[in-house]
Amino acid sequence: MSPKIAILGAGPSGLAQLRAFEAARKAGLDDIPDIVCFEKQADWGGMWNYTWRTGLDAHGEPVHASMYRYLWSNGPKECLEFADYSFEEHFGRTIPSYPPREVLLDYIMGRVEKSDVRKYVRFNTAVRWVEYSEQTAKFTVTVMDHDKGRLESEEFDYVVVATGHFSTPNVPEFEGLDRFPGRVLHAHDFRDAAEFAGKRLLLVGSSYSAEDIGTQCYKYGAEEVTFSYRSAPMGHDWPDVFSEVPLLTHVDGNTAHFKDGSTREVDAIVLCTGYQHHFPFLPDDLRLRTDNRLYPRNIYKGIFFQDNPRLMYLGMQDQYFTFNMFDAQAWYARDVMLGRIALPDFDTRNADIESWRTREEALSNPIEDIDFQAAYIRDLVDPTDYPEFHVERQGEVFKQWKKDKKNDIMGYRNRSYTSTLTGTTAPPLPAPWLEILDDSRESFLCNDFEKQSKAGPGEKVVTARPDRLSTPSMQRPAAPRVAAKV
Amino acid sequence: MSPKIAILGAGPSGLAQLRAFEAARKAGLDDIPDIVCFEKQADWGGMWNYTWRTGLDAHGEPVHASMYRYLWSNGPKECLEFADYSFEEHFGRTIPSYPPREVLLDYIMGRVEKSDVRKYVRFNTAVRWVEYSEQTAKFTVTVMDHDKGRLESEEFDYVVVATGHFSTPNVPEFEGLDRFPGRVLHAHDFRDAAEFAGKRLLLVGSSYSAEDIGTQCYKYGAEEVTFSYRSAPMGHDWPDVFSEVPLLTHVDGNTAHFKDGSTREVDAIVLCTGYQHHFPFLPDDLRLRTDNRLYPRNIYKGIFFQDNPRLMYLGMQDQYFTFNMFDAQAWYARDVMLGRIALPDFDTRNADIESWRTREEALSNPIEDIDFQAAYIRDLVDPTDYPEFHVERQGEVFKQWKKDKKNDIMGYRNRSYTSTLTGTTAPPLPAPWLEILDDSRESFLCNDFEKQSKAGPGEKVVTARPDRLSTPSMQRPAAPRVAAKV
Repeated sequence: MSPKIAILGAGPSGLAQLRAFEAARKAGLDDIPDIVCFEKQADWGGMWNYTWRTGLDAHGEPVHASMYRYLWSNGPKECLEFADYSFEEHFGRTIPSYPPREVLLDYIMGRVEKSDVRKYVRFNTAVRWVEYSEQTAKFTVTVMDHDKGRLESEEFDYVVVATGHFSTPNVPEFEGLDRFPGRVLHAHDFRDAAEFAGKRLLLVGSSYSAEDIGTQCYKYGAEEVTFSYRSAPMGHDWPDVFSEVPLLTHVDGNTAHFKDGSTREVDAIVLCTGYQHHFPFLPDDLRLRTDNRLYPRNIYKGIFFQDNPRLMYLGMQDQYFTFNMFDAQAWYARDVMLGRIALPDFDTRNADIESWRTREEALSNPIEDIDFQAAYIRDLVDPTDYPEFHVERQGEVFKQWKKDKKNDIMGYRNRSYTSTLTGTTAPPLPAPWLEILDDSRESFLCNDFEKQSKAGPGEKVVTARPDRLSTPSMQRPAAPRVAAKV
Repeated sequence: MSPKIAILGAGPSGLAQLRAFEAARKAGLDDIPDIVCFEKQADWGGMWNYTWRTGLDAHGEPVHASMYRYLWSNGPKECLEFADYSFEEHFGRTIPSYPPREVLLDYIMGRVEKSDVRKYVRFNTAVRWVEYSEQTAKFTVTVMDHDKGRLESEEFDYVVVATGHFSTPNVPEFEGLDRFPGRVLHAHDFRDAAEFAGKRLLLVGSSYSAEDIGTQCYKYGAEEVTFSYRSAPMGHDWPDVFSEVPLLTHVDGNTAHFKDGSTREVDAIVLCTGYQHHFPFLPDDLRLRTDNRLYPRNIYKGIFFQDNPRLMYLGMQDQYFTFNMFDAQAWYARDVMLGRIALPDFDTRNADIESWRTREEALSNPIEDIDFQAAYIRDLVDPTDYPEFHVERQGEVFKQWKKDKKNDIMGYRNRSYTSTLTGTTAPPLPAPWLEILDDSRESFLCNDFEKQSKAGPGEKVVTARPDRLSTPSMQRPAAPRVAAKV
């Protein structure tokens, strides 16, 4: 009898798992397992769906997405290409290296929409509880079906946790926040930079959330952006309205106080203080406990839970690589579930984990981090039939991206890179990223990128149509940083 | 052997239950049950604790409180007085009828702090799951102890659900919200009116949340307040910057469109669209399903779950009466758990529920609603030793409050009422409510209310000290509606 598999979540990781089984079916596997994918949201796509909602959703479930408007990829698309589905295959042409959110979502969805996997997904269904029975060697998964308004329980042989780790904010306390006369929010609840046009923003944190939210808010008219760092400033060559100061100590009225004794008057505070690995539906003996790092302990090959390898986790690593790393994990997990790969015993697995962990702990800079994650993925890819995507060459693209970002934080998205799958170099954006205020898929894809890249600078084709232009509040707020070229 | 009791939540209802047992102990009961009260927050007080946090708390749990800064009681304190602990007893003097949040919290906490009940409460402990076994006739309650970082399960004879029903927002969808270039939030996430100074606010809803948040925002400098109603406007005699329009149909940029074809330009949208009864920790066969109403079905005496009366619910009604209604329920529930009151059989209970429900469905106005809820409470109070508090006379105070609010929505909090417990009439506020911008306990209680009430209008004592004045943002936003008299 083929095994029964529960996949928790239909975001990039869960979809990778569905796609992995679909690929096996297409390659001739008859005995396809019985799969159910439980998804809390009304549609698939996970973090890549945008919602204006914050806090709790229409069913009282915590809102999954930390996605905000105007988000563009902050890494080259050439580093997140699926090995079995290139950007060129999806769009029928080449597109620039840094697309906006809707365009990336379109790409992710394109692959699964062409597959026959939607039938496996139960939407509006939140996982409440998972239990494992030693007697039956089965998991009981209890879910709330919000469409039916009732709980249901079902038994499975395997459970794949693909719920992500950028949904439950890590929110520290700072004295005085309870009396701050403006909005205080975590990056998880950030939705629209236009709300902060004309404001003096304090962003607490110095990682991707701070960098990107600060950049967006500048683009859409924030008056001042102050970053507060714990250990070290990002150190980019920021425009004048930016500054980086040491850690926030406390807030007094509108005045923010920092560790070096300096102060700033601010109108809003965004806590870009990271996320927790949070699995409220798992008992202690099945729950992964880790901080955000390249090699969490207790999961063999970064996937199989040590105390019960029938429980798998996808995408729980700190990430340079994303979509294709999830694929590599999903293909490997699939082959274990299909019996094509045999897992070694506990001690052998443990020794493997420890050896990777030792390597990870010796890493001293981002270049080494990238090589480490590429090596991790290579280790997963080789034993499976996941197509070659030249992960090491993608690693080199990541290194170039690091340099390009360092050189020009406001302009790195204007650069182009070469696909390791198709060998094609991406056309440039039709205008500098800082000038493109409309981030809609429609507007982006109406460009003729090839033609534009051959046109001189004075002949650039319109990137944003006036009727779709996403302007900040039409009323009082300051004008956007740079007017769109229309 | 004395029964083992789980109380879920240490807000006003859960504390009433603790206090009910404490009162029995003081009255000579030796065989006090084994009680554990599980509380998600770090302190007791439930909804009455203020936090700047929204969405998820430090442990990734949904934030319980919908409380916001500058909230003052919107009903007379004389209608929410505990029968066994008067405001005068707590404060050692009389205070005005409408105190700010911190003062009410102080009062609620005063009673339990003087009791020896804190030892029963396990803080930072979220209830994950409750199950009932027919075999053992016991409940298994599984909680996450966030201090220990682990799950624990324990068996109980009775479970009292006191988790409230104003924490899980009911959030409808309106077309265009995903592209609105400003903040969209539910009242649950509203924290600080100062954030909206100088803004044009749209509040969707026409119940208490809309009324009070609109009023607060006006007080702290909002430029315009528009209420959008589904069935009928509130119809108060609003100041000029207010207006009431039919239901929102959609949003286009900053333009809100309403059912009558009218439009408004708005900067922020607050959905005051109510709350769900939400019990994600309960299986279907133990879960109360109801809308917000005076007499929910399936709970006998408004407390005992029909299919399993060992499971009790407190405070699940739509509320005129609050603290003393929770007390009345808690005392009655206690006496059932102690075997002092015997519950009738299923059919008798059902007939009783249906007869109350029939009465409720015939109610046609707020005056009748108040009488109905007073009668419900009378029915609970008489069989127990809860002290007399003249619920019917409190009902009359509620009716007067209704009139006073109708007559002067911005000024009703300046009125005074007479305690049904002590017979004392409250002194007036030291200045009109609209002028008192500092809502702190410290500032409020530094007033000599008696002296002030005898002083002429020109000699009023300072109500807000300049160093504590809660002003809106010191910078750009408009000045508060009325300057504080300092």
